[in-house]
Parts: sequence; C-alpha cells; structure tokens
Amino acid sequence: MTEKVKKIIVIFAQAGINVLETMAMVKAGLGKAYIKKDQKAVGDVSGIIGFSSKSGSAKGSMSVTFSEASALGIVGSMLGEEYPEVNDEVKDAVGEMTNMICGQARKDLVEMDMIFEAGTPSVVTGKNHTIRHVSERAILAIPLDTSHGSLSIEVCIG
Amino acid sequence: MTEKVKKIIVIFAQAGINVLETMAMVKAGLGKAYIKKDQKAVGDVSGIIGFSSKSGSAKGSMSVTFSEASALGIVGSMLGEEYPEVNDEVKDAVGEMTNMICGQARKDLVEMDMIFEAGTPSVVTGKNHTIRHVSERAILAIPLDTSHGSLSIEVCIG
Repeated sequence: MTEKVKKIIVIFAQAGINVLETMAMVKAGLGKAYIKKDQKAVGDVSGIIGFSSKSGSAKGSMSVTFSEASALGIVGSMLGEEYPEVNDEVKDAVGEMTNMICGQARKDLVEMDMIFEAGTPSVVTGKNHTIRHVSERAILAIPLDTSHGSLSIEVCIG
Repeated sequence: MTEKVKKIIVIFAQAGINVLETMAMVKAGLGKAYIKKDQKAVGDVSGIIGFSSKSGSAKGSMSVTFSEASALGIVGSMLGEEYPEVNDEVKDAVGEMTNMICGQARKDLVEMDMIFEAGTPSVVTGKNHTIRHVSERAILAIPLDTSHGSLSIEVCIG
C-alpha cells in the first residue's frame, strides 16, 4: 500500500468517524482497511456518490454500505426516533450521511492537491445487494464498527 | 412539465437509445417518460453515476435500472456471448453503458448551458433492489423497451 493510498484511507475513515459522531452521536471504530480485489460490498442499504475533478481528468465514486440493523440504529440515533424498517426518511438520512462523509473527505483531499466536486447521492435498498465500483483503479475498503453494527466505506479514485 | 424538463428527458432518452443501438445493436423504444413522486426505481441490476458542474453549484445523479433478463440479453448482444447469470463481466458492461449514456447526455446538455463532469459508475446487483435519488429536485423517469425486456433511466439534476 503506497503512502498516498494510506493517506486517502485515513481521510475517508476520519470523515466517516466524524460524521457518525457529529450527526448521529455514534462512536465508530476503524476496522482493518484493505484494497479489494473482488470489488464487492454486500449490504442492505447503501449510499452512493460520484465525484470528479473540475477538468474531468480525475474521477471516482464512494459508497457507504450498512446492514439493515446498523442503518436503522444509526439513523435512529441521528434523528432521535425508532425506525422498525428502512423507510424514505431512513434512506434520505443515509443519503445525507453519504453526502457529508464525501464532502468532508473532499475538503481534506484538497491538501493532497485532489480537488473534486461531487454529484448528488443515491440510496440503494435491497437485502444483500452488492456494489461494484467500475474502474481500473483499486477499491479501498474501510470498515467501521459501531454499537449498532458495522458499515463499510468504499472508495475508488481513478 | 416545463420545456426545459422535456428537453432534458429527450436528451437522456436519445442517449440511451443511441448507446443501446451502437454498443449492443439493440433497438429500444421510448415508453412514457414521467416525473416521479415516489422516487424509486425497482430492478435487479443498476448502473449509477453522479455528475456535477465545474463550480459544484449544479449536480445530479443518473441511474439505469435493468431487470435481470434485460441486463443479460442486452449485455449478451453487446459482447456476443450468452450470459446465464449476472457475473462481473455483465456488471462491468452495465457500468460502461451507464457511463456512455451519461457521457452522451452531458455532451448534449452543453447546448442548454449545463456543463457537467461525471464520476465513475457503480453497479448495484440484488433482486428487486430500489434506488432513491436523494435530492429536492424532481426525478425524471425514462422507460425504454427492448426485445430483451425493459430498462429505466432515471435522472435527477439539482
């Protein structure tokens, strides 16, 4: 793993941990980050966002994949409500978290001379869906653990 | 529906029809496009891509959602192979088609003074997953019919 890749992982991990703490009052611990070969996140609820440099020469995508339990628990803590199922409010909150994690990471990537603008987030719901980031670049997988269950941030910058 | 929205629908519909014809030799007919209220595409395989203006002031997302049958049939025609299941090759082809539809639409949007760069595509697989574009803007749904089954392009520009 190059120093650059390590720095990118730290930036996205820190963004995820900060957003969970400030938005949802949920403490998250960083699991072992790794470079994926099978390019596949599996989960029940995912936020996805794409980003690109102003010139379009660099681009990427980021996903945040939750189990149903971790999505319901984290969004419940964020909005101060109990959610028995993944409704539109939960999906919007997942989209908002995805947007904020990406936004904070993009802010920190500027220090690495990587300046990105992001699209709007989409939220996928479906038991055991998988996400494949279509790129020739490595996929960085950043697992986070919380008391509500785990989630995984995946980042691909090409 | 405003003239602007109609124009955007035509641009994305034309991009979808052209990409299917030129990449996969599949003729597609345009169904009735509409503005979604429930913001939910349901399908088995979806390509998702985000885009943003250089200044970051305008942004959006686009998804192309296939049934399993239409994904297998269209990618099979595109690559000249029979695919019994959605493997990584099928997913990459769906990602590539998503990228090309978005690319052609972005080219045509320039005439409307909308200049976007796109992120990299992600491909979601999972029986009956749903996609919610998280935005306060309207979601434009553009259904296309082919001899392999239907697909739906959804666009959200905010």
